[in-house]
Amino acid sequence: METLHVNLGSQSYPIHIGADLLTNLPAFLGSAESWVVMTDETVHGLYGQVLMESWNHSKVHTILLPQGEDAKSLTTVEAVLDRMLDLGVTRRSSILALGGGVVGDIAGFCASVYLRGIPYIQVPTTLLSQVDSSVGGKTGVNLSRGKNSVGSFYQPQGVFIDTTTLATLPQRQLISGLAEVIKYGVISDYAFLGFLETHFADLLQLEDEIMRHVISVCCQIKARIVAEDEKEQGVRKILNYGHTIGHALEIVTDYKEYTHGEAVLIGMHVEARMARELEMIDQEYCRQILSLIERTGITVDVKDLSIQDIIRSMEKDKKNRDGKVSFILPSNKGETTEVLLTQKEACSLLEML
Amino acid sequence: METLHVNLGSQSYPIHIGADLLTNLPAFLGSAESWVVMTDETVHGLYGQVLMESWNHSKVHTILLPQGEDAKSLTTVEAVLDRMLDLGVTRRSSILALGGGVVGDIAGFCASVYLRGIPYIQVPTTLLSQVDSSVGGKTGVNLSRGKNSVGSFYQPQGVFIDTTTLATLPQRQLISGLAEVIKYGVISDYAFLGFLETHFADLLQLEDEIMRHVISVCCQIKARIVAEDEKEQGVRKILNYGHTIGHALEIVTDYKEYTHGEAVLIGMHVEARMARELEMIDQEYCRQILSLIERTGITVDVKDLSIQDIIRSMEKDKKNRDGKVSFILPSNKGETTEVLLTQKEACSLLEML
Repeated sequence: METLHVNLGSQSYPIHIGADLLTNLPAFLGSAESWVVMTDETVHGLYGQVLMESWNHSKVHTILLPQGEDAKSLTTVEAVLDRMLDLGVTRRSSILALGGGVVGDIAGFCASVYLRGIPYIQVPTTLLSQVDSSVGGKTGVNLSRGKNSVGSFYQPQGVFIDTTTLATLPQRQLISGLAEVIKYGVISDYAFLGFLETHFADLLQLEDEIMRHVISVCCQIKARIVAEDEKEQGVRKILNYGHTIGHALEIVTDYKEYTHGEAVLIGMHVEARMARELEMIDQEYCRQILSLIERTGITVDVKDLSIQDIIRSMEKDKKNRDGKVSFILPSNKGETTEVLLTQKEACSLLEML
Repeated sequence: METLHVNLGSQSYPIHIGADLLTNLPAFLGSAESWVVMTDETVHGLYGQVLMESWNHSKVHTILLPQGEDAKSLTTVEAVLDRMLDLGVTRRSSILALGGGVVGDIAGFCASVYLRGIPYIQVPTTLLSQVDSSVGGKTGVNLSRGKNSVGSFYQPQGVFIDTTTLATLPQRQLISGLAEVIKYGVISDYAFLGFLETHFADLLQLEDEIMRHVISVCCQIKARIVAEDEKEQGVRKILNYGHTIGHALEIVTDYKEYTHGEAVLIGMHVEARMARELEMIDQEYCRQILSLIERTGITVDVKDLSIQDIIRSMEKDKKNRDGKVSFILPSNKGETTEVLLTQKEACSLLEML
């Protein structure tokens, strides 16, 4: 088991990465008056029993969350909090979030607001949540017209990443996670981009040593960025490479066509070409990014969607400033620059690609 | 205008106290891309115009919140957040909470979770919110079976207390605020208790200099306690004197019979007698506390309510520990001690009073 640290003063916490962590997880958990395992039916079916077998605590409750992005609502949150109150969950209890990003986002938000905040542990079971959403304390649910528009920055007590859980991950979810993996190379570590190129086939085969290395590098990069800028006032923004277009695509297609990772893959593809068009990167580096993205098998053809619709959907992006849309674009190998564009400028640029 | 400070490191903020602050408030506010004034119909009718007259900002929106304790729900929160999204409120916007405790609690919670947190200013207009709820960053709404069971610790950018607004406060609300004023004397400042005894008639007459002094002392005490213990892990608990019984009374009477302050007055009366019964304070000091409480005119007769019901309603109190109910009881002049009692012990003690 490898252990990294997210350094946030009094709110610092460890990230543990290893194979088969779940079989003995309770031994690593701190004490709590009671535990609430939040998970969904699929993950519970796969790993619920493994987790519970070694758990001797007398009070472990399980709350099954509804599945899918639609589950991330204040309605779900209220039902969960009501249930916690009924179960007698106190401030000295802890939540354990077992699942992917949706479970982690809902569980983290519930932890942050129940009785004004109780501790929680992240146990991410998808590649996407292992390399991205479980680290950094972003929690949240959606409003009817705004994804992640309600939430908090609320750090977990710890993150436990069991790489063995990737074996049961559908291929499409694996690809979705690879989006964020590739992103880390582009925004922060050119050598890592090279490593991904060399070992791409191993990644798709879930070769364990390679996976653990990749997850570890991604978590190190994320931990460093979060430690520098917990509340996204500055450098944390670079994590949004591919996400301005990605979010817009998700909105325009009502979150039905693409997984989050697929939308980000397309977003990174488009935004790399925007950077090239703005002469922020040379042709060769642009080609290198595009090739790696294309090796995931994603089809990057958004011509069926109106650029106008895409731009319009960016209007309410949390990252906007002074009415301008914020894009994080590659500017050097392993570096990015924020570019603010009016909707009109963004539109013209996209039409030239 | 007098200015105090709540020292919380990077989250420190000032409390400004003075007469007629509202007439020139915008001049003291920091910059924001847009402002959302959250208030209710009554307060808006009384002070909306005064506030707006000197405000030259091009984007000031007003959201009228429903009134009463029932308004403090996740349903209200969702409606408010939806409206903010529609208004194009961004992370660089600010909320201004203009009103009593209900407005402050809802507005503060909305500020803490909208786009993972935006700045807010408290402008409390009731005595209760001026001396208590507007300072300290506790925000929250209710679940159907739990008062303030959803919320956050989220500090405002500043608190502006205009003592002139007390002139329009109904007598019952003034008495309600005096509950918390008396509390500060008992928990932290015996000399202040003497001051209150001497000037009680002036308080009821809203004599401005006396009011400003009283509010200032209360805010200083609260600011000091909050600075020591932002998240109620320790000393902040002492603020709960009178509140264990008070909350229970509110629950048993379904929040319909007593205002919060009235319930706390009765709670302090009962809890002072509990302290006497446990021989934590002498007869003379107990009598002094009881007399001051009785001068508010509150009727302290809860015999119509079953003690069993009261105790049962404490079961889900946030302050409980290891299944025991937490009471903050006076132990010396200007000092309190936490006493943890099983439900059975609490029941026996209450029956002896």
